[in-house]
Amino acid sequence: MQTLLKKVQDIFAAEQFLTEPRELYEPIDYTLRLGGKRIRPMLLLAANQMFHGNPEQVRHAAIGIETFHNFTLLHDDLMDKSPIRRGQPTVYRKWDENTAILSGDTMFALAWRHFLLQPHTRLQEILTCFNETAILVCEGQQYDMNFERRSDVTLPDYMMMIRLKTAVLLAGALKIGALYANAPQPDIDHLYQYGIHLGLAFQLQDDLLDSIGDVAQFGKQTGQDIRDNKKTYLILRALQAAPPNLSRELSDLYASTPTNSDAKVARVQQIYSQLGIPQMVEEAIADQFDKAVQHLDAVHTDETLKRPLRELTATLSERKK
Amino acid sequence: MQTLLKKVQDIFAAEQFLTEPRELYEPIDYTLRLGGKRIRPMLLLAANQMFHGNPEQVRHAAIGIETFHNFTLLHDDLMDKSPIRRGQPTVYRKWDENTAILSGDTMFALAWRHFLLQPHTRLQEILTCFNETAILVCEGQQYDMNFERRSDVTLPDYMMMIRLKTAVLLAGALKIGALYANAPQPDIDHLYQYGIHLGLAFQLQDDLLDSIGDVAQFGKQTGQDIRDNKKTYLILRALQAAPPNLSRELSDLYASTPTNSDAKVARVQQIYSQLGIPQMVEEAIADQFDKAVQHLDAVHTDETLKRPLRELTATLSERKK
Repeated sequence: MQTLLKKVQDIFAAEQFLTEPRELYEPIDYTLRLGGKRIRPMLLLAANQMFHGNPEQVRHAAIGIETFHNFTLLHDDLMDKSPIRRGQPTVYRKWDENTAILSGDTMFALAWRHFLLQPHTRLQEILTCFNETAILVCEGQQYDMNFERRSDVTLPDYMMMIRLKTAVLLAGALKIGALYANAPQPDIDHLYQYGIHLGLAFQLQDDLLDSIGDVAQFGKQTGQDIRDNKKTYLILRALQAAPPNLSRELSDLYASTPTNSDAKVARVQQIYSQLGIPQMVEEAIADQFDKAVQHLDAVHTDETLKRPLRELTATLSERKK
Repeated sequence: MQTLLKKVQDIFAAEQFLTEPRELYEPIDYTLRLGGKRIRPMLLLAANQMFHGNPEQVRHAAIGIETFHNFTLLHDDLMDKSPIRRGQPTVYRKWDENTAILSGDTMFALAWRHFLLQPHTRLQEILTCFNETAILVCEGQQYDMNFERRSDVTLPDYMMMIRLKTAVLLAGALKIGALYANAPQPDIDHLYQYGIHLGLAFQLQDDLLDSIGDVAQFGKQTGQDIRDNKKTYLILRALQAAPPNLSRELSDLYASTPTNSDAKVARVQQIYSQLGIPQMVEEAIADQFDKAVQHLDAVHTDETLKRPLRELTATLSERKK
């Protein structure tokens, strides 16, 4: 897994993002150099290796998928008015809103540039997989924004939303890597489902870390979802589990936006703790990781070739940020 | 040419843009149904017909190129804070900024969906042409925004900017149509250059119409470029042609943003008129149309097959909106 991360880092280190006009490309270079976990290109490379693919052949697809992911973060941060990403100011804060819009648009096209560099007999299928995934991610972000304004969101609604917003891109990265290596369709399907459950687990972890994570390790303020009245697995589970009076209190807290939100955050967290929500979320996360691993088990290939994904799964299941 | 427009209108009328989530797709449907001149898909279809292409084969490319164009307008209107487009409120005004950002992003992906529907032996080349054009259009928009903050923009700078922002997409549409029909490379090159000069002429007309056009016909307020201190061919030409005192007055006017800008607009227009700028712009436009026609003349194909583009060129050269 460390080898895989190193490979992705080397690919990005060798890449040149800075060109003219500087005002357009500096924010792009800034965003792509900030790093992050690089999970999607790692998944793409790992899936490709599992079927004896050629790493050089998926080099640009790996850059493409990560560039697309960073484009979505850039625009999401603007839409959500998030000031910090990966411990650094977000593009719309460091520059301005128009810069964030246009640099984001350009990053989407740059992602395409990379995907278009490598010929392949199944290129149309690969590109369609990428693009349909991109559309689902946009739809997921729309549902996420819709849910902020709705008070009747259910847990299944929420799981559908994070599937689109987060999980399909992990699944798509794996599928693309496997397609480049001409993997058999049943294995591609299992890898896709592995990615879906990995993505769901990942997003539930994010929800949990945002609420109870360690600030220093997490890289951003905790309790932000509560401050923003953002629908998360925790609040939906709590509303379901709470007795009527507590459920009403939670609803009221989630309908308020006090100037000083510290008391609100503390009270919501207290209720979560009282109801045992963190443990329930831990269980839901473990369940998604189990399902992911079952699909990985079902892939027909040498166990040694699965090792990078097994390690990645284990590392993610223990993440604290 | 009317046949061509009818064909494009039929293609769009048969298309379904509205799906779930409504909050995402309603603004897309609204934008794509507002109409507009549909020049880019017309160029694409015409170029394809010139080389005995199959209209059914480029149907989706025609939708794709227009969807991309409308995506750029949607984001440009947000960045420029333009309230009106085609006589109707822009998306960010009718809905909100986040809707404009995300619906725009989705439109870019929807453009790709259409381009990916049609297999072709030269698909990678076609898609690369589309994508590299998209990147140039983004760069053009960035230069346009940069120029608003700069006082040292020259006429060649300006021509470079409108080449990227406007002309390459017309040229790209023609090239894509020709590629689908497997046209010979020299003819593709001439069509591309035809599109470049047509696009330059088109943008210079826009500048002129914004300054001296008829409000009712143009569909938006005239003098808006002057109000916004936007660099146009007119102001750059005027600064060049004016004697020092008048040039200084123009510079000062273009550095000011009065609450009531009517007097400023009137004075700048008066100076334009005094210097004979509208006539100079008319000449520059005619010159670009001449160059465009020369490239169209040079294409090796039946004269009857060139007729739609000849008619389109003639219609555009007389446009008042």
